[in-house]
Amino acid sequence: MSATMEAFDAVDLIRAKRDKGELTTAQIDWLIDAYTRGYVGDEQMAAMTMAIFLNGMSRNEVRALTMAMLASGERMSFTGLGKPTTDKHSSGGVGDKITLPLMPLVAVFGAAVPQLSGRGLGHTGGTLDKLESIPGWRANLSNEEMYAQLRDHGGVVCAAGSGLAPADGKLYSLRDITGTVEAIPLIASSIMSKKIAEGTSALVLDVKFGSGAFLKDIERSRELARTMVELGEDAGVATSALLTNMNVPLGFAIGNANEVRESVDVLAGGGPADVVELTVALAREMLNLAGITDVDVESALRDGRAMDKWRDVIRAQGGDPDAAMPVARDTHVVLADRDGVLVEQQALPFGIGAWRLGAGRARKQDPVQHAAGIDLHAKPGDTVRRGQPLFTLSANEPERFARALEAVDGAWRIGDVGEPVLDGGPLIAERISR
Amino acid sequence: MSATMEAFDAVDLIRAKRDKGELTTAQIDWLIDAYTRGYVGDEQMAAMTMAIFLNGMSRNEVRALTMAMLASGERMSFTGLGKPTTDKHSSGGVGDKITLPLMPLVAVFGAAVPQLSGRGLGHTGGTLDKLESIPGWRANLSNEEMYAQLRDHGGVVCAAGSGLAPADGKLYSLRDITGTVEAIPLIASSIMSKKIAEGTSALVLDVKFGSGAFLKDIERSRELARTMVELGEDAGVATSALLTNMNVPLGFAIGNANEVRESVDVLAGGGPADVVELTVALAREMLNLAGITDVDVESALRDGRAMDKWRDVIRAQGGDPDAAMPVARDTHVVLADRDGVLVEQQALPFGIGAWRLGAGRARKQDPVQHAAGIDLHAKPGDTVRRGQPLFTLSANEPERFARALEAVDGAWRIGDVGEPVLDGGPLIAERISR
Repeated sequence: MSATMEAFDAVDLIRAKRDKGELTTAQIDWLIDAYTRGYVGDEQMAAMTMAIFLNGMSRNEVRALTMAMLASGERMSFTGLGKPTTDKHSSGGVGDKITLPLMPLVAVFGAAVPQLSGRGLGHTGGTLDKLESIPGWRANLSNEEMYAQLRDHGGVVCAAGSGLAPADGKLYSLRDITGTVEAIPLIASSIMSKKIAEGTSALVLDVKFGSGAFLKDIERSRELARTMVELGEDAGVATSALLTNMNVPLGFAIGNANEVRESVDVLAGGGPADVVELTVALAREMLNLAGITDVDVESALRDGRAMDKWRDVIRAQGGDPDAAMPVARDTHVVLADRDGVLVEQQALPFGIGAWRLGAGRARKQDPVQHAAGIDLHAKPGDTVRRGQPLFTLSANEPERFARALEAVDGAWRIGDVGEPVLDGGPLIAERISR
Repeated sequence: MSATMEAFDAVDLIRAKRDKGELTTAQIDWLIDAYTRGYVGDEQMAAMTMAIFLNGMSRNEVRALTMAMLASGERMSFTGLGKPTTDKHSSGGVGDKITLPLMPLVAVFGAAVPQLSGRGLGHTGGTLDKLESIPGWRANLSNEEMYAQLRDHGGVVCAAGSGLAPADGKLYSLRDITGTVEAIPLIASSIMSKKIAEGTSALVLDVKFGSGAFLKDIERSRELARTMVELGEDAGVATSALLTNMNVPLGFAIGNANEVRESVDVLAGGGPADVVELTVALAREMLNLAGITDVDVESALRDGRAMDKWRDVIRAQGGDPDAAMPVARDTHVVLADRDGVLVEQQALPFGIGAWRLGAGRARKQDPVQHAAGIDLHAKPGDTVRRGQPLFTLSANEPERFARALEAVDGAWRIGDVGEPVLDGGPLIAERISR
């Protein structure tokens, strides 16, 4: 920020937000700059974020916060590529591997997909963790490598460099240990500062709602989506959002290697209906925002073009698309205890179960076990027979099964034929644009 | 705390309070213990205090917090003295020197007054700063010296040792820089943990309201008073409170040495009516709670017994009650600009004015200038004549006058005879007891 920036007192700003006041853009610019430089301490920022959590922020404040975090670091540009850039961000869910089939599918049609991704923490997985199941694949690329891959192949999935919105990195770590993660102004500015810094010209947000989502209520998810769409559009990024149902796991695979396998099934023209539906809907949305219309998205899954693109981009990052994927040492199968219909399969407990099997991490520095996870064999609405496998747990240490089974206990139920299925309604509930 | 204390996760507790939940006593015990030991960080405690500020605390939570802070340090005991202990705490105001005449006045009647006091910060003065105007007087006593002085003289005013409620000291410093000072649960537990640790068996709270008080609204002052009375009574300390008016400075002197002089005037049977009224009311209340009734408090001011006691206790702490007090190098007198009645004299601006003259400190490590301050020559309701002195500013550097005059500009007004006087009503508004 400029050397002539106006100076404020951190306590004055905290008190203003505490008393439901609105901070000015100059105040927010100063706060984020001073926090990034260490003039404002973690304890002051923690008090501020709790005040923001409880008292909210106006649209102007959220915009100022986003732009201040964006200004704390570099901003990438792909205008020299000669093709439109379009990206997707998901608020995270159980079994959400959509980025994997989506990125090559969109790239097939001439758009460039600069997908900067993260790692998982807790019960939601991370795209980088999933892709690292593929022998040889590497997540860390330089800006130059990323640019070259987009130019040559049209798609890249890699780790966000620390140069993008460093204020957000610092603030997110603080929010994580101070109970202020789930505030909409803070989530929206965190995601959008990084996505705007990434340099995409179009962005589709997959905002989850339901029991397995970060925000359970569709109303709050809608508010988050609207806030982010406004922030994107204000910053010159064509942005829209789909509100999608996360009451039930997405697809059959929850883990890492098994989610890659399922993604490859989709790219081969098969795969679970819900994963295909969401992948196609998001691809259409991304292409639309990038100005690429009148294309038959589904045909690229049927005719092998998306699969070819996948193999290209995996190879470009050192991965071997033909290598054997890791396999777990132990498996445990849960069988149906009666005939009937699977009427319930709650996303969150299955996400926690997979996490406990080793698919996720409790602390940032922990490794994940790529072969650990859960494979579902039936989805809500399916007819099942007593003794039929319902789901399989995979782990490298059999002593993990007990706690994973505890997590999913009561999370699924076989009912009578004709009983209502508790899946929370359609997969894609709403589309939000400015 | 015991080694078998239950362990919790700080983020869980922050989230519970953030979501308006009630913390258990075991959770609060753990939190304060872990914070004192450094297992819970300042940033986590800052988020927690902001959540407490905005979402409040139940009576049980405030009690648990007070007792946890009390348990973080030593607790004094004066049961061996053979006389009842009784103390007073003021929430702080402009010109509030009441402790000085009150302590010896109460000691005259056989009670022991263990007055652990603080220093001033900002516009409210500190009792220790005022007494340090007296040549030779020292504020720091060992526990043994304090005990001996109470035994031999019945009164002591000294600095609270760091061994009393150390968790409160740490938490108060944090609140100071994170905008969470004015929360009633935090104020009440901070004051009461120290007062209970001090070992007094009776306590009278002088809770100020009005423009010059810490809490402006009488409703909030009443809530603070009620909370503290409950906390004291629950901990076995006979506790009551007076709600007193701080719209107008107390007495004529605002500063340090001049407040000592005014206190000596009261002990000599004179002094400003408001200072005498409040001193006598608080003395009666303190004696009453200590079981000493049917005594003529005012007679001890008239017949020299309170003055003798004052001289005893000042000498016992090394002070010379007959020494010349410091005098400022420069004075500046403000005159009445018309005939009429002084209808307004706002406490806060006069407090800030005295502070800017050097009577107070901006940072904890700053010294105070004992001779600096303001002497009022008229009080609201007084008839004044054009050209008559209204107040005198005293400072050691004449360049301080301009900013002090700026502070009091518009803070006083001479009106017509018959115009209502804006003094906020009677000095003592309410008495609160369980």
